[in-house]
Amino acid sequence: MIRYSYLGPAGTFTQAALIQIMKDDDIAIPYANVTAALNAVRMGEVESALVPIENSVEGVVARTLDELAIGEPLVIVAETTLPVTFVLMAKEIVDLAKITRVLTHPHAEAQCREFIAASLPHAEVIFTSSTAAAAAEVAASKSSSDAAIAASVAAQNYGLKVLADEIGDHDGAVTRFVMVSKPGVLPEPTGHDRTSLAVFIGADHAGALLEILTELAVRGVNLTFIQSRPTGLELGHYHFVMDAEGHVMDARVGDAMSALKRICEDVRFLGSYPRADLVAPTSHSATSDLNYHTSSDWVEAVRHGSAS
Amino acid sequence: MIRYSYLGPAGTFTQAALIQIMKDDDIAIPYANVTAALNAVRMGEVESALVPIENSVEGVVARTLDELAIGEPLVIVAETTLPVTFVLMAKEIVDLAKITRVLTHPHAEAQCREFIAASLPHAEVIFTSSTAAAAAEVAASKSSSDAAIAASVAAQNYGLKVLADEIGDHDGAVTRFVMVSKPGVLPEPTGHDRTSLAVFIGADHAGALLEILTELAVRGVNLTFIQSRPTGLELGHYHFVMDAEGHVMDARVGDAMSALKRICEDVRFLGSYPRADLVAPTSHSATSDLNYHTSSDWVEAVRHGSAS
Amino acid sequence: MIRYSYLGPAGTFTQAALIQIMKDDDIAIPYANVTAALNAVRMGEVESALVPIENSVEGVVARTLDELAIGEPLVIVAETTLPVTFVLMAKEIVDLAKITRVLTHPHAEAQCREFIAASLPHAEVIFTSSTAAAAAEVAASKSSSDAAIAASVAAQNYGLKVLADEIGDHDGAVTRFVMVSKPGVLPEPTGHDRTSLAVFIGADHAGALLEILTELAVRGVNLTFIQSRPTGLELGHYHFVMDAEGHVMDARVGDAMSALKRICEDVRFLGSYPRADLVAPTSHSATSDLNYHTSSDWVEAVRHGSAS
Amino acid sequence: MIRYSYLGPAGTFTQAALIQIMKDDDIAIPYANVTAALNAVRMGEVESALVPIENSVEGVVARTLDELAIGEPLVIVAETTLPVTFVLMAKEIVDLAKITRVLTHPHAEAQCREFIAASLPHAEVIFTSSTAAAAAEVAASKSSSDAAIAASVAAQNYGLKVLADEIGDHDGAVTRFVMVSKPGVLPEPTGHDRTSLAVFIGADHAGALLEILTELAVRGVNLTFIQSRPTGLELGHYHFVMDAEGHVMDARVGDAMSALKRICEDVRFLGSYPRADLVAPTSHSATSDLNYHTSSDWVEAVRHGSAS
Repeated sequence: MIRYSYLGPAGTFTQAALIQIMKDDDIAIPYANVTAALNAVRMGEVESALVPIENSVEGVVARTLDELAIGEPLVIVAETTLPVTFVLMAKEIVDLAKITRVLTHPHAEAQCREFIAASLPHAEVIFTSSTAAAAAEVAASKSSSDAAIAASVAAQNYGLKVLADEIGDHDGAVTRFVMVSKPGVLPEPTGHDRTSLAVFIGADHAGALLEILTELAVRGVNLTFIQSRPTGLELGHYHFVMDAEGHVMDARVGDAMSALKRICEDVRFLGSYPRADLVAPTSHSATSDLNYHTSSDWVEAVRHGSAS
Repeated sequence: MIRYSYLGPAGTFTQAALIQIMKDDDIAIPYANVTAALNAVRMGEVESALVPIENSVEGVVARTLDELAIGEPLVIVAETTLPVTFVLMAKEIVDLAKITRVLTHPHAEAQCREFIAASLPHAEVIFTSSTAAAAAEVAASKSSSDAAIAASVAAQNYGLKVLADEIGDHDGAVTRFVMVSKPGVLPEPTGHDRTSLAVFIGADHAGALLEILTELAVRGVNLTFIQSRPTGLELGHYHFVMDAEGHVMDARVGDAMSALKRICEDVRFLGSYPRADLVAPTSHSATSDLNYHTSSDWVEAVRHGSAS
Repeated sequence: MIRYSYLGPAGTFTQAALIQIMKDDDIAIPYANVTAALNAVRMGEVESALVPIENSVEGVVARTLDELAIGEPLVIVAETTLPVTFVLMAKEIVDLAKITRVLTHPHAEAQCREFIAASLPHAEVIFTSSTAAAAAEVAASKSSSDAAIAASVAAQNYGLKVLADEIGDHDGAVTRFVMVSKPGVLPEPTGHDRTSLAVFIGADHAGALLEILTELAVRGVNLTFIQSRPTGLELGHYHFVMDAEGHVMDARVGDAMSALKRICEDVRFLGSYPRADLVAPTSHSATSDLNYHTSSDWVEAVRHGSAS
Repeated sequence: MIRYSYLGPAGTFTQAALIQIMKDDDIAIPYANVTAALNAVRMGEVESALVPIENSVEGVVARTLDELAIGEPLVIVAETTLPVTFVLMAKEIVDLAKITRVLTHPHAEAQCREFIAASLPHAEVIFTSSTAAAAAEVAASKSSSDAAIAASVAAQNYGLKVLADEIGDHDGAVTRFVMVSKPGVLPEPTGHDRTSLAVFIGADHAGALLEILTELAVRGVNLTFIQSRPTGLELGHYHFVMDAEGHVMDARVGDAMSALKRICEDVRFLGSYPRADLVAPTSHSATSDLNYHTSSDWVEAVRHGSAS
């Protein structure tokens, strides 16, 4: 039995993603925000947390990135993705022209802008702390002209009626969630892994990102994701959260991390874990583990005077 | 007389920033969100819009970046910065322990987390569409246990009392705003300019960012800002919004833009305009305009057989 | 009728290469060394000179490179290659064991070392100023134990007997010759051209070569040859002679030359001319002339406010 | 007692350089050419060989480079430099206008061209296998109109008279010599070392040199010398002999060598040895041994789940 925290409340997309992963006797506990869900891991209340980290339409979930990069250390041990479909729901079936207020989370609003502009041009948009909270608020409202944009499961949870389905602007929108635990045993390499890092650069180092990318490139380590984040001190001071192909146990990934540690102010390891899409690294053979070991052995032999 | 749109409502930080720029007979019109403020320029209702683009603590304003990169073309013609100080306000002076709900915009909440955790640990945080909207809602509320986090000016606008001042977690937090107009005449080079670009790369081109940074570096063009943004199609497909030192009229900046245009799927020019901090480019003499012209003249002479 | 100077004396490989190029009424005048052949062009005694520049076994012909890079300016207008086959020759047919002295030019000796070591282990090697001079000296010698290593044609010219044919260590050895004229009209681009450059770097600039290669690489300009040469001042101070794919009239080649001119102490153009092997550049489409013009036009339009 | 072979005959600059190094009871044996001197080491006839590798005016000594890169493996264990001054000598003091033949080695001729052109414009230049051989031949000649260009010591050895002193075109010309032994124990690091490598690249790999230089640059390893050499197979197929700052025992040098071994067709170690000029590497602290060990330890700790 494993205890999981997740970004609640019940009825959000995160719960739907967690259900994909959980076993029957596991326990899932919703928390009010990403920080609270992660703190539950830090304090030992649960073994792991599931939180969103990236949405294909609206982009990164800033708080998750910042908690992992700057908060008390945690590591990602798995990831999962979930297609995102939005539903417009209200207490009863009404004509869309009668809806005067639409409640939803800012990220959901961002993904349904075209629908709102076309079908609810006169409705006021009210932001809530989650899409489930929007559904709950509509369920508690006395007004029949309120509607919520939320996940399909929220309509069931709160007894709401579906006014319109699949209202997202982008078919194929996907959210990526990460499973986060305390640092400890790493997931085994699978051949299709991802390694997440937070890389901190010194202030006013204009060429730092070029140097970082060059260190990765010469070792054949490709990035699948890079995001700059402000450090909280002054405009123009950033760190980077990046996902690289491969596992820290791979020679080239460890070597690249070692190089970044040398040239950067700091590097934090955020986890090596299997990719949800099962894509293997595209690195060429020159940077295979075998080549790494062969070349290191040669240098050691040279140092002992037994090779040239 | 110039008409400006800005991210409203009245009482937000954006209005405070606009006041720094406006002349007495100029007109400022608040709009409900960034898109609406920018559309007012696109439709000719106003000459220019002032919208936030970057906050030193919480990071970029995603919608501004996306509107500039993907929406109908507009260009930045000026920028201004504003120190951000947050104030906790309520209908009457009450003990903080009695506050049960705190209303504010998510970006403001992000910048006051430590204060909220320390001084308002039991209060529920309610998100609003702006800090001014939070103040307005508190002013309209019947409950004396509601408080808003907003700009100082909002307390005056809505007749609220200040419970705590300068409650932001980070002294020195600054927001950068950009003045946006329809494409047309460019601001003159001043010697301390910034050029903003949106750079689109083809899908699955792992080394594209390294190539882009190399093209800039070989021409001595430093970046002051880079942000990846999702394209809205699938996870892992990004474009980049970047700010470079210098003006498109500078030979090296134009040459770098030309190079990016060749190797990228697309490049959009977002404006060349004076920096608010008056910092001049740090590029070395090899890439001065004079050197550019001298070297181009040499190649032309070689092509005509009159130099070697 | 064209007058040619060439690296003589008559009977050398250079004459054989020149015969490939000359028309019936052209005149070929042998000179004692590369400098003299090139000075004949500089002084207007002849229109063009043919001199060796690179040998596939022994390497570059240093004096040709230095004359082109440092001497009074000349440009390469054509190139030709010649398979090199060496012949051992003497006044009369004798057993190889009886040969006590072998006369030849150092470059020929370098290409026949294995033959000499295996078949003439006890013979003294005497260096001459050319292979033809070796043949001439053997013809004038009173000793029947002298032999020359030279081109086949030299045996005919000097009435010598062939003791052994094709004695070079490397089948397929080739020498590249360049046709050199005064600066003036350039050869037309053919689609399979080479551009030769001499690039001078400032003293003690450890990363200069990396910068130079990066400038070429970002513009898709490949090198087919690079040779460092000492500047004659102190150990460790070099310039580079390099051959690039393409013609100075190609946009990317001109752009790369312009970039080198900016970052290097000096760059000298040594000519754009058709490759003897007819190989076309392998550059990808991003750096085609069309793309260069499209991207330059875009930057100009941006500068005039008519594009973004 | 150590036995040395050197590039003879006695009276050459190499002997003068060797005298700087030898102890009283050491033995120095001249050999006819570089290959013979090196073979004496390979066959165990002597412990070490001293041969020239680079001349500041005329450039590299091709045969030394090729023997080290391609011949049976040997390693450089020390280097020394010698100022080169040339002397014109003859059997008796005669007016320079009477000299009709000047005998010397091609490298010496290259360094005295201006003197020959100005002072001996009508003399025929005869190439010999060494400057000492030129002196010997003049001493044996019956003609008083023969002169030799050689080292000062050769005039003493062969009883010749000095006609002109310091006739080299370049004051400050220096030759670098290397001491070569069988592979075995390496010289200890001194803090001012040089590491020599031969790097072989696959055919038709246009960007290979850029990759090689990038691997070195990211590790803060500067080059002090690079020379391309033909492989002997076809035009355009090269390997590179390069000297890097530092010792193979330095972490960054070993790491760079390991990287080159991975990406190149082959790499041969040619020795780590103290620099004659005592110059220390200019590499910055990020690539110090300490930083290398700290960063490697961190990666190992991450792999064991005990760091992040």
